[in-house]
Amino acid sequence: MSKPIKLAILGLGTVGTGVVHLINDNLNELKRRSGRDIIITEVGTRRQRDDIDSSITQNADLMTVASSDNVDIVIELIGGTTLAKDVIMHAIKNGKHVVTANKALLAEHGNEIFALAEANGVHVAYEAAVAGGIPIIKVMREALAANRVDWLAGIINGTGNFIMTEMRDKGRPFDDVLAEAQALGYAEADPTFDVEGIDAAHKLALLASIAFGIPLQFDKVYCEGITGITLQDVNYAEELGYRIKHLGFAVRRTGEQDNAGQGNADEDNAGIELRVHPTLIPQDALLANVNGVKNAVLVNSHPLGQTLYCGDGAGAGATASAVMADVMDLVRVLGSNDDSNSANNSQYVPHLAFIPEQLSDTTILRAEQMTTGYYLRVHAFDHPGVLADITRILSDAGINIDAILQKPAHKLGQVPVIILTLPVVESQMNVAIEKIEQLESITDKVVRIRLDELS
Amino acid sequence: MSKPIKLAILGLGTVGTGVVHLINDNLNELKRRSGRDIIITEVGTRRQRDDIDSSITQNADLMTVASSDNVDIVIELIGGTTLAKDVIMHAIKNGKHVVTANKALLAEHGNEIFALAEANGVHVAYEAAVAGGIPIIKVMREALAANRVDWLAGIINGTGNFIMTEMRDKGRPFDDVLAEAQALGYAEADPTFDVEGIDAAHKLALLASIAFGIPLQFDKVYCEGITGITLQDVNYAEELGYRIKHLGFAVRRTGEQDNAGQGNADEDNAGIELRVHPTLIPQDALLANVNGVKNAVLVNSHPLGQTLYCGDGAGAGATASAVMADVMDLVRVLGSNDDSNSANNSQYVPHLAFIPEQLSDTTILRAEQMTTGYYLRVHAFDHPGVLADITRILSDAGINIDAILQKPAHKLGQVPVIILTLPVVESQMNVAIEKIEQLESITDKVVRIRLDELS
Repeated sequence: MSKPIKLAILGLGTVGTGVVHLINDNLNELKRRSGRDIIITEVGTRRQRDDIDSSITQNADLMTVASSDNVDIVIELIGGTTLAKDVIMHAIKNGKHVVTANKALLAEHGNEIFALAEANGVHVAYEAAVAGGIPIIKVMREALAANRVDWLAGIINGTGNFIMTEMRDKGRPFDDVLAEAQALGYAEADPTFDVEGIDAAHKLALLASIAFGIPLQFDKVYCEGITGITLQDVNYAEELGYRIKHLGFAVRRTGEQDNAGQGNADEDNAGIELRVHPTLIPQDALLANVNGVKNAVLVNSHPLGQTLYCGDGAGAGATASAVMADVMDLVRVLGSNDDSNSANNSQYVPHLAFIPEQLSDTTILRAEQMTTGYYLRVHAFDHPGVLADITRILSDAGINIDAILQKPAHKLGQVPVIILTLPVVESQMNVAIEKIEQLESITDKVVRIRLDELS
Repeated sequence: MSKPIKLAILGLGTVGTGVVHLINDNLNELKRRSGRDIIITEVGTRRQRDDIDSSITQNADLMTVASSDNVDIVIELIGGTTLAKDVIMHAIKNGKHVVTANKALLAEHGNEIFALAEANGVHVAYEAAVAGGIPIIKVMREALAANRVDWLAGIINGTGNFIMTEMRDKGRPFDDVLAEAQALGYAEADPTFDVEGIDAAHKLALLASIAFGIPLQFDKVYCEGITGITLQDVNYAEELGYRIKHLGFAVRRTGEQDNAGQGNADEDNAGIELRVHPTLIPQDALLANVNGVKNAVLVNSHPLGQTLYCGDGAGAGATASAVMADVMDLVRVLGSNDDSNSANNSQYVPHLAFIPEQLSDTTILRAEQMTTGYYLRVHAFDHPGVLADITRILSDAGINIDAILQKPAHKLGQVPVIILTLPVVESQMNVAIEKIEQLESITDKVVRIRLDELS
């Protein structure tokens, strides 16, 4: 048997401890698969831990661990975008391979980190950064390598999915479910990253880059959270055969595809849509039935068609599984270069799936240029002609109506009118909604939620 | 750019032609990802084709193509287990890598083929052999490489799933749907391989080997098809909250797990269950909602938990996607050994996920040793005490009843009694059923279908 592969784990929180446990639990499987001993030689931890095997060096100085001669692969699990970045850059400069679960760091600084790794002939692997234990990075970079990805849609934030699931299944309001999610440890004390969609946007930026071969562009992701979703809309959606999920979308638009409206669509909308928002999807879609904290990603590619990947998007076990899958890939490369830790870059799958010089500068569309269906909830006084006014405005704006649901009048004489539209460019919808809100009979702002048939 | 990678395609049927189209359609994507030109230099085809680019050599002699100096990777798409085997062995002996979609060949002769490849320092890739475009081979061998697989359950025959879906959705009988499936081209003129479960058993043998690290043992797969499923059972299952799907299961049993009965369970049932059969699963499981010709595989592993992979299990595009994903993996290895076509074996993922000397001879359980829940349909004359007799027999055999549904009497005075049981070793169930069938009030053979909660 060849010499052992030596790992350093930086950060012994939930996930770091999960990795230690995985290696203990599955030592035999790892050896049977890789033919190598895989051992933890060093851990970086602020406080000394007495539950760690005494053969492992503990060190509070992460930089020292990251460049230790006794380490082949550095596993970064401290999180954050400052120290984590310094440590990873230091490890790369010292010829170490890196495995990280840090989606925020990669979404914001990945272009720089990957370039440094390529210059140093090492690899930064990040399966655990997106959708936890679901191997979506491997699938997109390798299994779909012969495909042209047209679009993907993913439930990529477990907390958000838990909240949407509970609201629908139990008729509980948003605030109530959020409080429970915090009590259960699904949501942070400051839930902003989850409920405002920022965490999902980090992951979407990564998925979009490996789908289309574009640099990471987190700042261009349109990001809308679930804080505005009411039970009323959850229920109307169900009544119409849809379900509201918080989804991340990466969509490639060509000029032709986009004339979803009636001919007067904005022609300036060829490019890529990166967006994270609540979305009505058909109830019978598998994605609509991925519940609780589960994650799932649906990919539509040519010539494969639609494939779906579903599993736990967080947690110690799922994340450790993804971290160690990356390690096992690196072990294979290290095994074939036994004399040296560094290989030539062609042995690695390119960081962003496409070779660096082939990344393209395809336009990322602005929100107003994006094309989606819409759910509209309009509150109107129950006057004759109000429905005719609304539908005329939509029709004049080139917007096709797919379904209308007019509910009985409230006690105040107001009727909620629910309208589902076919796909339309947002700028057209903005104009129409402004006009609808100017109608005399309209009593409130129009509520709008995007809609996608996933077809 | 490095020298091009040269492919030979043997067989230009639906899938072979699909590969040609994929390479034409996605030439730019393939190059952007791999940094290499990937070209077809030769095709093996019985009759000359005039729709093939004139730069490609066409040859009816497959053996010549398989050993051509102008070929790096041989893609075998002729099917069958005789000529296909000869051609693959010949290619391997001539130092060619092989990509194949041939599940029957690998399930029956894979051990021999993989050993020859290992001896020759080449790789035989077979993503397309199981579940078409779903990258389940890559997922199991690589993405789950740090996990211990406990069990997997898969819808791995599209024709069977189409038939089961139509029976349930439209209340159509088996024969009627089969005839339509044949007309649509989903089922062969001789549908035996699909409806008797043989095709699924081929795929299950492959999945089980890479899940547990055992040699291929197709001959030990318990195999039951869908020809005996009636609309009556489909409907009773629905009434009880279940759905009947044709599934392949690979399950690792330890001694302790198996005392699902009440203590008198057979102790001789530690080992691996390989089985393909109709199965009741909960209606709300995602797997139960994978419909039509779609395939899906659910894997339960430690520490990851359950993950699900779903997509098209057949068809030119899906299969070509899988074939070319294998090619892209090989391109990466070839790229790092530019002077030679052969690499050292440690660069490849082992054929059966575990290194050959680590494959284990774990016992494969006989059918009577397998543990599952059961759906029983018993027809009895509506005499007082018959239900008491049946439940006493089950109880005496250590079988726990999970649900009972007694339907109103037929006009002949017979009542169908539907019983769902908790998991029990088959040998115990055999004894109980024999006793039930000896009861005077019982009018017919007991119908039994296995049941799994997927939990």
